[in-house]
Amino acid sequence: MNISERKQLIQAGLGDIPLDLKITNVKLVNVYSGEICQTDLGIKNGRIASISAADLKAEKILDGKGDYALPGLIDTHVHIDSTLLTPEHLAEVIVPHGTTAMFVDPMEISNVAGMHGLKALIDKTDRLPYRIYLEVSSRVPTAPGLETTGGELGLIEVSEILTWEQSISLGELDPSKVLGLQDEYLKKIERAEQLGKISNGHTAGLSGKALDGYACGGLSDDHECVDFQDALTRLRLGLSVLIREGSSERNLIPIVTGALEAGIDFSNLMFCTDDKHPTEIVTEGHIDYMVNKAIQLGVPPIKAIQMATINSARHFRIDHLVGSISPGRFADLILSPTLDQIRTERVIQNGNLVAQKYQLIDPQMTRYYPPDLMKSIHISRGSKPEDFRLTASANHVKVWVIGLIRDQIINHRETGTLSVNDGIVQTDSSQDILKLAAVERYGKNGNIGITFVRGFGLKSGAIASSVSHDHHNIVVAGCNDQDMAACVRAVQEMQGGLALADGGEVIGRLALPVAGLMSDHSAAEVIEELKTLNAGYTRLGGVLSAPFMALSFISLPTVPELGLTDKGLIDVETRSIISPILEAMN
Amino acid sequence: MNISERKQLIQAGLGDIPLDLKITNVKLVNVYSGEICQTDLGIKNGRIASISAADLKAEKILDGKGDYALPGLIDTHVHIDSTLLTPEHLAEVIVPHGTTAMFVDPMEISNVAGMHGLKALIDKTDRLPYRIYLEVSSRVPTAPGLETTGGELGLIEVSEILTWEQSISLGELDPSKVLGLQDEYLKKIERAEQLGKISNGHTAGLSGKALDGYACGGLSDDHECVDFQDALTRLRLGLSVLIREGSSERNLIPIVTGALEAGIDFSNLMFCTDDKHPTEIVTEGHIDYMVNKAIQLGVPPIKAIQMATINSARHFRIDHLVGSISPGRFADLILSPTLDQIRTERVIQNGNLVAQKYQLIDPQMTRYYPPDLMKSIHISRGSKPEDFRLTASANHVKVWVIGLIRDQIINHRETGTLSVNDGIVQTDSSQDILKLAAVERYGKNGNIGITFVRGFGLKSGAIASSVSHDHHNIVVAGCNDQDMAACVRAVQEMQGGLALADGGEVIGRLALPVAGLMSDHSAAEVIEELKTLNAGYTRLGGVLSAPFMALSFISLPTVPELGLTDKGLIDVETRSIISPILEAMN
Repeated sequence: MNISERKQLIQAGLGDIPLDLKITNVKLVNVYSGEICQTDLGIKNGRIASISAADLKAEKILDGKGDYALPGLIDTHVHIDSTLLTPEHLAEVIVPHGTTAMFVDPMEISNVAGMHGLKALIDKTDRLPYRIYLEVSSRVPTAPGLETTGGELGLIEVSEILTWEQSISLGELDPSKVLGLQDEYLKKIERAEQLGKISNGHTAGLSGKALDGYACGGLSDDHECVDFQDALTRLRLGLSVLIREGSSERNLIPIVTGALEAGIDFSNLMFCTDDKHPTEIVTEGHIDYMVNKAIQLGVPPIKAIQMATINSARHFRIDHLVGSISPGRFADLILSPTLDQIRTERVIQNGNLVAQKYQLIDPQMTRYYPPDLMKSIHISRGSKPEDFRLTASANHVKVWVIGLIRDQIINHRETGTLSVNDGIVQTDSSQDILKLAAVERYGKNGNIGITFVRGFGLKSGAIASSVSHDHHNIVVAGCNDQDMAACVRAVQEMQGGLALADGGEVIGRLALPVAGLMSDHSAAEVIEELKTLNAGYTRLGGVLSAPFMALSFISLPTVPELGLTDKGLIDVETRSIISPILEAMN
Repeated sequence: MNISERKQLIQAGLGDIPLDLKITNVKLVNVYSGEICQTDLGIKNGRIASISAADLKAEKILDGKGDYALPGLIDTHVHIDSTLLTPEHLAEVIVPHGTTAMFVDPMEISNVAGMHGLKALIDKTDRLPYRIYLEVSSRVPTAPGLETTGGELGLIEVSEILTWEQSISLGELDPSKVLGLQDEYLKKIERAEQLGKISNGHTAGLSGKALDGYACGGLSDDHECVDFQDALTRLRLGLSVLIREGSSERNLIPIVTGALEAGIDFSNLMFCTDDKHPTEIVTEGHIDYMVNKAIQLGVPPIKAIQMATINSARHFRIDHLVGSISPGRFADLILSPTLDQIRTERVIQNGNLVAQKYQLIDPQMTRYYPPDLMKSIHISRGSKPEDFRLTASANHVKVWVIGLIRDQIINHRETGTLSVNDGIVQTDSSQDILKLAAVERYGKNGNIGITFVRGFGLKSGAIASSVSHDHHNIVVAGCNDQDMAACVRAVQEMQGGLALADGGEVIGRLALPVAGLMSDHSAAEVIEELKTLNAGYTRLGGVLSAPFMALSFISLPTVPELGLTDKGLIDVETRSIISPILEAMN
C-alpha cells in the first residue's frame, strides 16, 4: 500500500474521514482470537479499516442481515492454467464459492511459452474479482531431457520472477531435483530464501530416508499427501500440509479424519485444489466445499475456516494482506447465513459485492492474449494413423501398461500381453488396454512417444487433449490408430483442445485456443461442452468421471510410477526412457 | 544456507555421509504436529539433518538419556543493550536458560551512537552461543524535538538495515508516528512490507478508535498489553500478542489466565522480556520461566512450548530457520528431563552443547568496542548541586509529580505541594516526592530537565543512571541536590553507569562504559555489583525491587502519562514540554 492510501486508511479507522462502505450487523468470525463477535465492518480503499464501525460514517451501507462474516477463502496451490478456463472466466465459478485468493503455480503456460506466456496469463489480473499470487514455477521443463516443451524458466527467469511483489514462493519442486543435488534448483531455493519467500514441496510417493533428505532441501510444505500417514510424516518433518481436493485427487477425508482421531495440531494444515475442473467446481464447490467437508467430519467451524484462511496466509507470509478480517487487510470476505455449513451467499472482494446467490455479479471482462499464444499447436506428425503404429517381430508381446488409480494422479506400473498382427502390435479393449501416445506439438521435432494404458475403459474410439502435464504435448489414448489420428487432427484444427473420435470421425470437441490450454469461452459454455464430451466418452464405454483430467496427468514424467512424453515411456524412479515392449513372445 | 552446505545437509539426511552429531534416545517435542515422539536426532553443519536418525552414522554421539528435546526458546522482543551486559556476557545468563534466539531492537545503542553503535553491537555476534535477529529500530530518536540524543536512524539508514539478512522486522513503532500520519515512519513500514518483513507495534495505553486507527497502520503485533482485555482487543484486530515479562513489566499472569478462561486461540501468542535485568534472569529464569509459568497456569506443555518457539518463528517469518526441531532448521535445542516444568539442563546451539546444569560451558569470548563508544559521556552541567536548583517566587508550589506504578512502565500524572525556602523549591521525602533530573550527556548543549517523582521511597541520598530510555542521558532522582550532583560526577568518571550517593559521597557504583549502557564485566560480577547497589538503595529507604530499571523508564517521553528528558517535563499525550510547576501558592 502506498503512503497516501495508508494515510486514508488510518484516517478512516480513526473516524476522521468517511468509510467507503459499512457492512452492518454481522457476526465476525475472528480467525486471530478464534471467536465470533457481533459487530459492524468498515471498509476504505478496498481494505478493512475497522471491525467496530458502528459509530463511523460511510458513503454506502450494506446490511449484513446478521450473517456470519468470514475471510475470503484461499486456494493454496492451483495450476490456474489447467482449469480449461482463462483467469477471467474462472472467476465465474470460483468467486461465487467464496474463493478470493488463488496461490497460482503457472507452470502450464510457462511450459508452453515460458516467461512470455506467464506474463500474458497474469497481465491485468489485478482487475479480476479475486487475487492471484504466484508460486513461481521452479521446474519448467519438469523433466529436462525427457520431454520437449515450448518454453523454459531457467535460474535467471525464476530469480527475476521471485522478486515480483505478486510472487510469494518458489513453486512445487519435485524430489529428483533436490535429491539429485542439482545446482540450478538448489540455487532457486536459496534465491527464494534470500527474498524471504518459502519454497513449496512436492513429495508424491516419497518416504523414509528419501523424504528426510528432501526435507533438508529447504522446502516448506507438501500438497501430495494421499492419506493421513503421509500427512503426519510430513508435518513431523516441519512441512505444512496443503490438503488437496481436486477433480482426480481426493485427499481430504483420510487426512482430516486421521488428524481428528490423532488429535494433532491443525495450524499447519490448509487447503488446495491443485487441479480441479470447472465441472466439479460448479457441482460441489471449491474451497468452501473443503471447509464444509471438514466441518462434517467433525472439525469445529472456526478451525475449518482458519484452515482455509489465516493458516494459508501465515504459511505463505502474506497474513498482512489476506486471511483475516482485520484492519489493513484486503476487504475480501464472505457473508454466510449459517456456520455449521458455510453458504457463500454474498462475496465481497476488494470492498465490492462481487457475487451473490452463487452468481458472479459482473462477469463482463475481456482480456486479450498475444496472437502467438492463440496459435500454438504446430505438429508435423500425428495426423495419420500410421504415425501411431508400433511394430514387433513376434506373435505376442509383453508390454508395459500405465495403470490408472482412480482419484489419484499416481499410477501403477503394470504389464499386459498383446497380439501382434502382421508385425503390428494390437490394442485390446477386452483387457482395457488402450494405446497411449504423446505427440510433440511445438513444431520442434515431430516426436511421438507410445505406450499402453489401462483404466479408461473405452470399447471403441479415442480421446485426446493438448493439456498434458507438464509438457503439454498432445496426449491421446485410443482403441485404434485411425481414431487417435482423427483426435489429433481435431486438436490441431482447434489450435488446442479436447477431442473424442469414433469410427474415424470426430464426435466431440472442446476448443482450448489459449496456449492450447484454455478456452476463451465462459465457464458455463465450457462446462456444457465438457459434459457433452464426457457423455460421449461414457457412451464409448468409458468408466472415469473426469477422463480428460486423468488423461492430462497420465503423461507426467515425475509422478510414480510411469509417465509418457513425446520422447517415450518414462520410468519415473530411474528417470529413464524405456521401451514399451518388455518382451517378444511366440 | 549456501549450496554446498545444503548439499551436505541433504546427503546427511539421506544417510550418504555421516552426521556431525547424533543425539540418541530423546522424546522429541514436535511443535508442528503437537506430539511427542521417541527418536534420535541427527545434526550436520549446525542444522537438523534428521529426526529419525537411529540408523545413521555420526562422528559423535550424545546420549539424550530419555530427556525431552524441545526447540531452543525465543525472546521475541528485547532491548539487548539495556540488560547492562554486553551480548557476549548476556550469553552467560540467558543461554543456560535455553534461550537460543533473541529478536533484538537495538534502540539504545542507536540512540547513543546511531548506525555506528548498532554495527559495533552486533559485530561478530554470529560467534555467540545464541542468535541475534534484528527488529530494526524505527524511532531513533524516539521523540524528535523533545530530547537530545547522540545518534539518529533516519529513513535512509533504516531502509538499509532492513535489507540485511539478520533483520526480520521494523522495530516497535509508537502510536504518535502512525496516528500523526508522519511520512518518514509510514515509509519505513512500507519499506519493511516491500521486503516481506513485518512491523512491530507498540500501543501502550491505546484503546478505542485510536487503537483501530493504529492497527490500520500496517503493524503486526504488540508487546505492551498489561492485561487480558488489552491482549484480546489487539488479537481481535489481527495484532499478535508478544506477552511480556520483564524486570518491571509483569504481564504474563493476567494475559494467560484470561486467555485460558476465554478459550481463545493461542497460535498468535508468544513471549518476550523487552527489558529484564540479569539479576532477575538468574534468580527466576528467562523465557523458560514464562513457559513454566504458563504451564503452571494450566496451558498444556506442548502449547506453552509452541508459544516460545514456533509461534514466534512463524510470526516473524523465519520458521525455516528457528522455532522447531525439523530438518533444515538450526540445531538449537534443549534437553529437559521433565515436561510438566521444563528444566533446561542441557542446551545445544548450532549443534554444540553450549550449556549444562544452568552454566555456560565456554564463556570465554572477548569482543572489543570502538574507542569512542568506550568514552561516550560528555557533560558540561550536572556535576554541581546548583545545576539542579529549581526556583520559585512563592512560599509553596504545586508541582507535577511522575507517579511510579509498580511492575509497569507506564506512570500516573500526579501532583504534589512542596515548600519553597529562600526561593528554592524543596523536595519532601516525607511525601515521597524526590527531585528528578535528566542531564544531557552527549556534549551537545548542557541541558538539564527537572521535575518530581513519587515511588522511589528514598529517605536520603540520590540514585542515578546513564541508562534512560530512549535518549540515554543521565537520569538522577534524589532527596537533595548535593547527592544528585555526586551521582552525576560518578557516572561521568565511570564513563557511564549506575550510582548511589548519600551525604554528598558516592556510596555505590556500577560502571557501564560500553556506550554508557553496558558493563564490560561478566554477568556474575554485574549481578553482584547490582545487588550491592540495590541493597544500598534499600538502606536509604528505597522500596522498589528493581530501582534502576524503574529509573531507566521514568524519563521515557512516549509512554503515558509523563516523561522527562533533558529538555524538560513531557506531557506524553500532547507531546509537549510543560513546566514542572503548576502553580505558585502562598
